[in-house]
Amino acid sequence: MKIAVLGTGMVGRALAGRLSGLGHDVTIGTRDPQATLARTTPDGMGSPPFSSWSASHPDVPLVPLAEAAAGAELVVNATNGSGALPALEQVGAEHLAGKVLVDISNPLDFSQGFPPTLFVKDTDSLGEQIQRAFPQARVVKTLNTLNADLMVDPASLGAESSVFVSGDDAAAKATVTGLLESFGHTDVIDLGDISTARGTEMYLPIWLRLMGALGTAAFNVKIVR
Amino acid sequence: MKIAVLGTGMVGRALAGRLSGLGHDVTIGTRDPQATLARTTPDGMGSPPFSSWSASHPDVPLVPLAEAAAGAELVVNATNGSGALPALEQVGAEHLAGKVLVDISNPLDFSQGFPPTLFVKDTDSLGEQIQRAFPQARVVKTLNTLNADLMVDPASLGAESSVFVSGDDAAAKATVTGLLESFGHTDVIDLGDISTARGTEMYLPIWLRLMGALGTAAFNVKIVR
Repeated sequence: MKIAVLGTGMVGRALAGRLSGLGHDVTIGTRDPQATLARTTPDGMGSPPFSSWSASHPDVPLVPLAEAAAGAELVVNATNGSGALPALEQVGAEHLAGKVLVDISNPLDFSQGFPPTLFVKDTDSLGEQIQRAFPQARVVKTLNTLNADLMVDPASLGAESSVFVSGDDAAAKATVTGLLESFGHTDVIDLGDISTARGTEMYLPIWLRLMGALGTAAFNVKIVR
Repeated sequence: MKIAVLGTGMVGRALAGRLSGLGHDVTIGTRDPQATLARTTPDGMGSPPFSSWSASHPDVPLVPLAEAAAGAELVVNATNGSGALPALEQVGAEHLAGKVLVDISNPLDFSQGFPPTLFVKDTDSLGEQIQRAFPQARVVKTLNTLNADLMVDPASLGAESSVFVSGDDAAAKATVTGLLESFGHTDVIDLGDISTARGTEMYLPIWLRLMGALGTAAFNVKIVR
């Protein structure tokens, strides 16, 4: 499948690398490819410069946001939460219409330090905001409940764990579930319509506290039933 | 141990019955015992009248809130979220001072229907509100992440799952962890201070959506790591 991954951080790299490794035709979209490739220092989250990742993934071109989405059948939003809507505006509704838009972003607000708060919650979610802003996109919220390495290689935990999909379009959720299964996810739970993204986004506070308590991000939930 | 359980709903009954069965000296506290025992219809959550539960648990007296707490070494707040602070005010700070106060309540607001929203979240939690209102109580937030039956009998799921403790007092958390282990909990995770109750309270939205998706409340999370 032709897939555009929007975002050059840890999540974007993990998704793009894995999807490319599985044989998909992947491009990464970013606001200013030249600026991104010119950086020589770690990004705000401590990731190595994108250029070093890019050098080891020659099959995954870095192009402007709209160009990436324009040529794709499926688009993955792997931007950080506060940048999600602006990045998608730059993509343009015409390049998202009718396409599956996988939203992995979380509405984290780090402006008051750590732990972050959520800039939308409870009566709305970032997933819903994106669906409302781009009504012709087929938004599926998923993978926002675990760290980037586990998103694309859950088997590395050594025991089954669960991931969730939320969205209004059943066929889009089926497509995304298939991709998740190709990553190794064996327990994909369909929570319901896109408003159920409120649940997975509000899960972030306990995820962050668990990361602190366990001293690692290498964990995930299994829904035991 | 002498234990007071505040609240006559499903959670209070489950806790009181289990603790009594384990040999603890348990009383249930409620605002107006005579009125509670006089009811002959199911409560707002569909539970049978308290009198029928009481008849099968003759060792567990129902007494006024303050009386229950006054004679107890450990107090369990099993009221519903909106009633928690008023009930504890009626108990009185003098009957909570120095005692472990196990808080199981969730700040659910059903005023706009289902699913409920949270009346405190993100930058504060009900657990913290209770700790601030009763600074001499040793508040431990726990068990608010699973249904009443599983709180006291997690082994019925047939596979290990996880529960959490949040609180400022390490000795109080150790006492509560011991009680949880006596119920059969084998993976009790200490999230940290009482502010980590924000995490477990904000977990409720995904719990509620999971209940809808799975069609049952008989599930719990296992933190796989």
